[in-house]
Amino acid sequence: MRGVVMHGAGDVRVEDRPDPVIVEPTDAIIRVSAACVCGSDLWPYRGLEPVTEPRPMGHEYVGVVEEVGDQVTTLRPGQFVVGSFWASDNTCEICRAGYQSACVHRVLMGTIGTQAERARIPLADGTLVATPGVPADDLVPSLLAASDVLGTGWFAAVAAQAGPGKTVAVVGDGAVGLCAVLAARELGAERIIAMSRHTPRQELARHFGATDIVTERGAEGVARIRELTGGLGAHSVIEAVGTQESVMQSIGSARAGGHVGFIGYHGEVPVEELFYSLVHLHGGPAPVRRFLPELVEAIWHRRIDPGAVFDLELPLEEAAEAYRAMDERRAIKALLRP
Amino acid sequence: MRGVVMHGAGDVRVEDRPDPVIVEPTDAIIRVSAACVCGSDLWPYRGLEPVTEPRPMGHEYVGVVEEVGDQVTTLRPGQFVVGSFWASDNTCEICRAGYQSACVHRVLMGTIGTQAERARIPLADGTLVATPGVPADDLVPSLLAASDVLGTGWFAAVAAQAGPGKTVAVVGDGAVGLCAVLAARELGAERIIAMSRHTPRQELARHFGATDIVTERGAEGVARIRELTGGLGAHSVIEAVGTQESVMQSIGSARAGGHVGFIGYHGEVPVEELFYSLVHLHGGPAPVRRFLPELVEAIWHRRIDPGAVFDLELPLEEAAEAYRAMDERRAIKALLRP
Repeated sequence: MRGVVMHGAGDVRVEDRPDPVIVEPTDAIIRVSAACVCGSDLWPYRGLEPVTEPRPMGHEYVGVVEEVGDQVTTLRPGQFVVGSFWASDNTCEICRAGYQSACVHRVLMGTIGTQAERARIPLADGTLVATPGVPADDLVPSLLAASDVLGTGWFAAVAAQAGPGKTVAVVGDGAVGLCAVLAARELGAERIIAMSRHTPRQELARHFGATDIVTERGAEGVARIRELTGGLGAHSVIEAVGTQESVMQSIGSARAGGHVGFIGYHGEVPVEELFYSLVHLHGGPAPVRRFLPELVEAIWHRRIDPGAVFDLELPLEEAAEAYRAMDERRAIKALLRP
Repeated sequence: MRGVVMHGAGDVRVEDRPDPVIVEPTDAIIRVSAACVCGSDLWPYRGLEPVTEPRPMGHEYVGVVEEVGDQVTTLRPGQFVVGSFWASDNTCEICRAGYQSACVHRVLMGTIGTQAERARIPLADGTLVATPGVPADDLVPSLLAASDVLGTGWFAAVAAQAGPGKTVAVVGDGAVGLCAVLAARELGAERIIAMSRHTPRQELARHFGATDIVTERGAEGVARIRELTGGLGAHSVIEAVGTQESVMQSIGSARAGGHVGFIGYHGEVPVEELFYSLVHLHGGPAPVRRFLPELVEAIWHRRIDPGAVFDLELPLEEAAEAYRAMDERRAIKALLRP
């Protein structure tokens, strides 16, 4: 089969890779209907994370089940499924507490590579959520978004305790940040401040429910959020960039007792600043599986359209251009059709 | 009046200081019945924080109201009162959300100095909680504990979401850590693991409700907590030391989705470790005022005896010895009687 492999910074190729086969009796094989390029794929692409050997790429996917292992009981070939970037059993104590991304048996899909024609999905019963039927073609981007970018934005919004009566600030206008705006709206937030200085992204933020746009960054961004919130700061802040600066900007933008949900994993937080801020801080690899059933349901009934984040669609063979477009910020998010 | 002044590292003196007077109409003057030395007072005492000019010391206090300003409506001379180390109006939006330590009008009592015969208490209506009557003398230490060390331990336990069905680990066997053990018990925790290697402190931890004692520290301490919790980590971890190492030990001891409540403000947290731990992190200057009414009530009815943390009682004039005893860990916590 054909699949995307990264050979080094800036060097993404579509190559022949071995067809996946059932390895564990809990596996499923899916034919990938759509995959995409993640913001996190850009870290090695930009040379900010080492690529020591050729690396199959991709961890977001929707597709059709082709084959299941002997112990798979809830899925059958022909079903259309959505999964997360962590395979999880969904039965262990950690999964039952809603943290499937830390499942005691978890497998990272990024090590498997879903930017490909087919993919092996470990722990299929726990990982995959089947849609009610074969989706209309225009629903596929939104279902694919649920696989990571929406699920991650949703988790960040839940971690930030976005909800009724709350003012929510979203730091970052990438696909996750934009999906977090949508999540905050769905969770009932009263006011949603999107921090963005790019017109098309501002427009999408408004489409997803942003009530205010702030273009300032860093200390000026913090000052502007405080100005908009009576000097107190936002109740909820969603960090959706992933840099030291954005984490500190997020902590600074939240009021005492407020909540910061973060997706970034770079930099350091000085304990003293966190201490005096009195904010709650929670984030990490999103347990997307926790939210998938409700997200799939909302997409299926067309209540939400997170697929709007895909502003570029290319055949799998043109993956290198998809990476380039995202790297150069010509595209918010690129969808690949095998 | 007589009061404690720190002149530099290791240099604590009891001196004549001006009697406090009403400055703002919302002030009260109290005669201090008991004050004490805080673990945080040891940071400048040990030269770990600079002392640039002579500094009145003390921010924990109970006492009797002697005089109130014109705008004080809920207090009258003769009442016995407990207050927190942050004076707060208890009416602003932040106070009403339970974060009185970040009150928009807050005043830090440490700048006033309560290791003295008398003290001015700003924002008296919001800051002070009166007891139902004049307390029996043996209740005074527990009421004093509520002023900071119990209130801080309680906040850390609440921040760590200690409660029914939870396994709680407490990192640190100082007075705050020991009070956090008591708080975890009162909040209904199922299992409370105290991390301590000092026999008298282990005994007090057990008296306060610890079900397990762990003597290992650092990575070994983390490994032991994981061993005791089926490999998953504790649901709730209370960081009650205040060093970089203890913060990291606390994050490492919590399970994914678990909660770490912290009181420390030194060091840096690498975002990546926090990210992959998937824990919730919350701490800061404890909003003791939030908890004071319930703590005073529980002490008044002798349901809890946090005053047991005081294992040294001295006249105010011997404050220098109180500091030395705590610095040398000969005392868990020293009470001063003016």
